[in-house]
Amino acid sequence: MAKAKKNAISPTREEDYPEWYQQVIKASDLAETSPVRGCMVIKPWGWGIWENMQRVLDGMFKDTGHENAYFPLFIPISFLEKEAEHVEGFAKECAVVTHHRLKPGPDGGLVPDEASRLEEPLIVRPTSETIIGAMYAQWIQSYRDLPILINQWANVVRWEMRTRLFLRTTEFLWQEGHTAHATEEEAREETSQMLDVYADFAENWMAMPVIKGEKTAGERFPGAISTLTIEAMMQDRKALQAGTSHFLGQNFSRAQDIKFQDQNGVEVYAWTTSWGVSTRLVGALVMTHGDDDGLVLPPKLAPKHIVVLPIYRSDDERAQVLSYCESLMNELNDQQFSGGRIRAWIDDRDIRGGEKNWQHIKRGVPLRAEVGPRDIAKNGVFLARRDTGERRGVDRNEFVTTAGSLLDEMQQGLYQRALELREANTIKIDSLEEFKEYFTPKDRENPEIHGGFASCHWSEDPAVDELLKDLKVTIRCVPLDAEEESGTCIVTGKPSTCRAIFGKSY
Amino acid sequence: MAKAKKNAISPTREEDYPEWYQQVIKASDLAETSPVRGCMVIKPWGWGIWENMQRVLDGMFKDTGHENAYFPLFIPISFLEKEAEHVEGFAKECAVVTHHRLKPGPDGGLVPDEASRLEEPLIVRPTSETIIGAMYAQWIQSYRDLPILINQWANVVRWEMRTRLFLRTTEFLWQEGHTAHATEEEAREETSQMLDVYADFAENWMAMPVIKGEKTAGERFPGAISTLTIEAMMQDRKALQAGTSHFLGQNFSRAQDIKFQDQNGVEVYAWTTSWGVSTRLVGALVMTHGDDDGLVLPPKLAPKHIVVLPIYRSDDERAQVLSYCESLMNELNDQQFSGGRIRAWIDDRDIRGGEKNWQHIKRGVPLRAEVGPRDIAKNGVFLARRDTGERRGVDRNEFVTTAGSLLDEMQQGLYQRALELREANTIKIDSLEEFKEYFTPKDRENPEIHGGFASCHWSEDPAVDELLKDLKVTIRCVPLDAEEESGTCIVTGKPSTCRAIFGKSY
Repeated sequence: MAKAKKNAISPTREEDYPEWYQQVIKASDLAETSPVRGCMVIKPWGWGIWENMQRVLDGMFKDTGHENAYFPLFIPISFLEKEAEHVEGFAKECAVVTHHRLKPGPDGGLVPDEASRLEEPLIVRPTSETIIGAMYAQWIQSYRDLPILINQWANVVRWEMRTRLFLRTTEFLWQEGHTAHATEEEAREETSQMLDVYADFAENWMAMPVIKGEKTAGERFPGAISTLTIEAMMQDRKALQAGTSHFLGQNFSRAQDIKFQDQNGVEVYAWTTSWGVSTRLVGALVMTHGDDDGLVLPPKLAPKHIVVLPIYRSDDERAQVLSYCESLMNELNDQQFSGGRIRAWIDDRDIRGGEKNWQHIKRGVPLRAEVGPRDIAKNGVFLARRDTGERRGVDRNEFVTTAGSLLDEMQQGLYQRALELREANTIKIDSLEEFKEYFTPKDRENPEIHGGFASCHWSEDPAVDELLKDLKVTIRCVPLDAEEESGTCIVTGKPSTCRAIFGKSY
Repeated sequence: MAKAKKNAISPTREEDYPEWYQQVIKASDLAETSPVRGCMVIKPWGWGIWENMQRVLDGMFKDTGHENAYFPLFIPISFLEKEAEHVEGFAKECAVVTHHRLKPGPDGGLVPDEASRLEEPLIVRPTSETIIGAMYAQWIQSYRDLPILINQWANVVRWEMRTRLFLRTTEFLWQEGHTAHATEEEAREETSQMLDVYADFAENWMAMPVIKGEKTAGERFPGAISTLTIEAMMQDRKALQAGTSHFLGQNFSRAQDIKFQDQNGVEVYAWTTSWGVSTRLVGALVMTHGDDDGLVLPPKLAPKHIVVLPIYRSDDERAQVLSYCESLMNELNDQQFSGGRIRAWIDDRDIRGGEKNWQHIKRGVPLRAEVGPRDIAKNGVFLARRDTGERRGVDRNEFVTTAGSLLDEMQQGLYQRALELREANTIKIDSLEEFKEYFTPKDRENPEIHGGFASCHWSEDPAVDELLKDLKVTIRCVPLDAEEESGTCIVTGKPSTCRAIFGKSY
């Protein structure tokens, strides 16, 4: 198995993980910062990944009975005020629209026209519970109107002071599901069903193992009764919250008067849920699979699967090689993979072969198939795998017929590799001393790569919060499959009935 | 051919066209107004139409070599200022973001926190030429970087004082293509290629005939050298501009410094284009095909094609009828239509049959297939067409095997009907008197339905502008296929070499 002699990305993950992340995004042409503070530009290759994510998730939402709709970008301040915790959570970081016209200013430039000042300022939606709830209150009269199962694909804005491409940006793209139900049981089932959908997507499409769990009180969505989450481990062993599903109880329906006549003619409040994942998942993909040569894409979400690279020296060779490449591409594109067709294309751009090859490595194209006169003579192609770096000559027909299963194998392999990393870096800890040591960086040169996940007994107590704050650690979740086990909180010594997952996080 | 005895929509088109439009939107559950001024809520059935439009257009854009990307929602004021005509066009109707935090106000509610006032206000994009251009200026160095062919699906905001669902709303959804080219010729080709894509979509998917033409100077996009348009006639004989494609020349590249080294090493400005269609097309669909019973959907864009309506009186009947309906639905869903499968579903909701039937009529479902015990005895279904109102018993197997071609026939029929309406209401006019009479409503009771399109000789002259303003008529376009024909302007008598299309418009 050949290995690349040098690395395309500098620094490497070991050297400086956060900077490696930025460099991979740049080298793989996924996105870049824009002149608008905190907002990013998602470039075509990054958009292609998000587009695939959207397509798959949208199908999953529809298969579970949801429909799409669209609600306004703006939310009147008075709507935000209705749910006390909710306003607390979002008022501090929102874009406020105060005027609807510009006019020439005293210095020649444009300024907001005071005559156009809005009576009630609007905020750009940071999430849509309040505006969607206002509509649901109109739509829901009787138990016959329930459940309402709606999803929205939208942009949202949360004013962030420290931003990072995909992981934390002022504007981001997401989907937000908002459902209303006649009973608590049904709403709770919806909440956990959608968490299962997210976990299925993360594991089977992103090849990213996740822990399904419930957030503790301090980490809940503002206004929720219960927040379920999927948590993934990145290669620096930090946790990334990849998707959340909230059981909102009757909090929002009380605040917004979403009520209905039940089967007995009694007026009662509806039970609501909301759930979302965002473009943050693209960042998770980078950090789960990327290596020191750039992006590594799980084939199922790669915008393209196979790049065919023609190699020739003369016009005569060119004609022969391109014709071979075209029929190869067409045959590949007829093959099945992941419920659709393989997506192969020919890169015949007039740039140096080495540079071209490295572009595709950095962008994480799963397979590269080089074709030169010598390969043609053997009816072969020279195949390179992005995941393992393996390069070898293969028979053309064998390649075509096995390409789909090879991509499947790569998808599985990436999942396994990520799972092994998480398992190798998750331990049970039962003493405070060990806990502190685990989360204290050993290497002052590289404070970013630390212990990993710790599974510990705990209790709700200010002393716990304080310790975690000091160590910059958070409780990621109480796993849904946590076994009942009596123990004592590692900080307070209070009795505990199950372990939670602790980690540093994004 | 049976006809509905009464109409589901009141008023009818003849009685009050604008009100009929609002009532159809409501009755068909496409959208409604929201509590946020000028912003609409697109409901699942309306979103399903837009989703189909997006899917088809997106495929067409990709087939013509475009990729999707995403640019920021916000635009700094200084960007807008760069192109003089552009700022003139958009500064008067934009949402201005001035703060990034709320705080409790003196009266208990929330107010913008003065400490969070932005140094430079941002506007919510009304269109993205300036922010995308700023990125292109960074991305384009050499002729090798060209062309750039990018499309974005996004929401945009133009502060409208008088709004109408889909046709004119403060926030709307659209796609905006933005391309940069090395030569004027290539950019002009792109501009007309995309107009052809729009015309193809309008005619072959929306079943809406359009006139391809060029806008006159006064009607151009702010900052464009040339604006191409597709213009459709609605059933009230008014024109609706359904899509535009702009050749921007070097206006924006000069304003934003989008320049590159050409093949001779000389630094030159790029040539840019932009083109867009929006959720306005959903309004166009309603007004082109709707009738006095509600929406009529061209099958190719209908979220669903066939509703199967089970009819039974007892539990015994129910089991038999539902089983028949399910196998019927499955067989229909295996049939091909419009490059995919037929979309049939069973509506077994527990509401009165008449009410249910009218819901589907109002929502424009192309075909309704009623199935009761008597139909089953004959191995048949009772079929109703939305377009013609025809209802008849048909053999089940014949129905299944011909459903795809029946939908095709309906699609064609809708196009023909719309084309005939336009042809019957387009005339050549060569005298000012006739022109005035044509555009003056005869019926004071119903001023909305007037002449139609007029094809006239014209000249660029203030006298023409004044007449048009008086009559509330605009020059829709100079058709691209207009024959050279010498004539004289109907207002000024100046010589003219071709006719333009005049009409009232949305």
